[in-house]
Amino acid sequence: MKANFIHTYVSVDCVVFGFEDDQLNILLVQRGADKKGVKDMKLPGSLIYTEEDVDDAAHRVLFELTGIKRMSLKQFRCFASPDRAKNPDDVKWLDVAYQPNINRLITVAYLSLSKVDRKLNNISKYKLTEWCPISKLPQMPFDHNRIVKESLTEIRQWIEFDPAIVFELLPQKFTISQLHKLYEAIYNKAIDIRNFHKKVAAMPYVMALEERQKDVSHRAARFYKFDKKEYNKRKTSI
Amino acid sequence: MKANFIHTYVSVDCVVFGFEDDQLNILLVQRGADKKGVKDMKLPGSLIYTEEDVDDAAHRVLFELTGIKRMSLKQFRCFASPDRAKNPDDVKWLDVAYQPNINRLITVAYLSLSKVDRKLNNISKYKLTEWCPISKLPQMPFDHNRIVKESLTEIRQWIEFDPAIVFELLPQKFTISQLHKLYEAIYNKAIDIRNFHKKVAAMPYVMALEERQKDVSHRAARFYKFDKKEYNKRKTSI
Repeated sequence: MKANFIHTYVSVDCVVFGFEDDQLNILLVQRGADKKGVKDMKLPGSLIYTEEDVDDAAHRVLFELTGIKRMSLKQFRCFASPDRAKNPDDVKWLDVAYQPNINRLITVAYLSLSKVDRKLNNISKYKLTEWCPISKLPQMPFDHNRIVKESLTEIRQWIEFDPAIVFELLPQKFTISQLHKLYEAIYNKAIDIRNFHKKVAAMPYVMALEERQKDVSHRAARFYKFDKKEYNKRKTSI
Repeated sequence: MKANFIHTYVSVDCVVFGFEDDQLNILLVQRGADKKGVKDMKLPGSLIYTEEDVDDAAHRVLFELTGIKRMSLKQFRCFASPDRAKNPDDVKWLDVAYQPNINRLITVAYLSLSKVDRKLNNISKYKLTEWCPISKLPQMPFDHNRIVKESLTEIRQWIEFDPAIVFELLPQKFTISQLHKLYEAIYNKAIDIRNFHKKVAAMPYVMALEERQKDVSHRAARFYKFDKKEYNKRKTSI
């Protein structure tokens, strides 16, 4: 009985969403290169240190990758399947990157929806960090594909009751087309644009501005903004 | 560097809320008795096993305590402060209950708002399990008081956008007085009953029934129910 308790390494992994070039992207780092020279991308993460709290570890990882000190991060789930770090390739990488005989590894996953500038100030151990469109995610090590999938499920659950979080990803002034593309990416489905316009019209906190796009080849679209004050009227206060 | 990574035991702890006798209660278990014979109560929890996932461990703990196999549980936070298991009394208890030299212990906390019957079917290692009113929580070991406090903060955040979760704690038919007491307990403050009646009147999903209380010494209060269909109209669907 006594020998049966888990004694494990613990890591943090960060799912950082950013909306750039009208696409929903996730920040990935390069773990190494496989035999065929294909990039081996994964979620940014790290084992946590002996005297470190998990939240601090997540902030450290993102600081090293982006140069941003206090990025808004939300812990969303601990992934602890006994099999999650048993793929031989992953075991081998852990041996080299950290230390041998990591028999089990649980991870605490974080979500960030902050506006992140493309100009990343990477001081981490990773050679390459880059934005990857959510529609073009590669097969990643460990259970990182599952973590991304569940982070999208989590976001959809938040949106059901708190649509404000969508606007954390958009610039202050945005077009309905951008909002539409963002919703399509989060829900991973085509959304009829006419119905979508009706939905947005029913959101009193999405306010039309007088301003329109400039220097575009197509018809200049109107800009909108998210009105937090109007939005907060939805909240149930007791 | 290599020696600096955490290598730790991992536990689960469950904050199980139940509304009984018009009070918001939490399920506690007895760890032992201190020198003065005072009960030493804590949140139900357990170290997880080598081949066990954290969600499974949480369900196991609650099954052992209540006899309920698939209680609705939500993982809400990993608590991993390096100091959380360093109190000498806690270290001593871990030595006896589990094994010596547990130098660090992180825990994954779960929340349950299920309707739990008072008749608990306890097959766990704990002699005593009991409901404790949230207003009378004792000083508990580790960071269990902090975990309860943060679980209440978490619930308040949910309620802001998803008031339905409140009704998970109430019987199918409830009085406004019960709802009022539940809100007061969750928010830990007195709420003016007249204003509260106005708030409830503005909740179209709280429906008055024809039925009233029976066999009460005071004026029989009307029963209400939560209308899930009406409630779901609030959701933002795209």
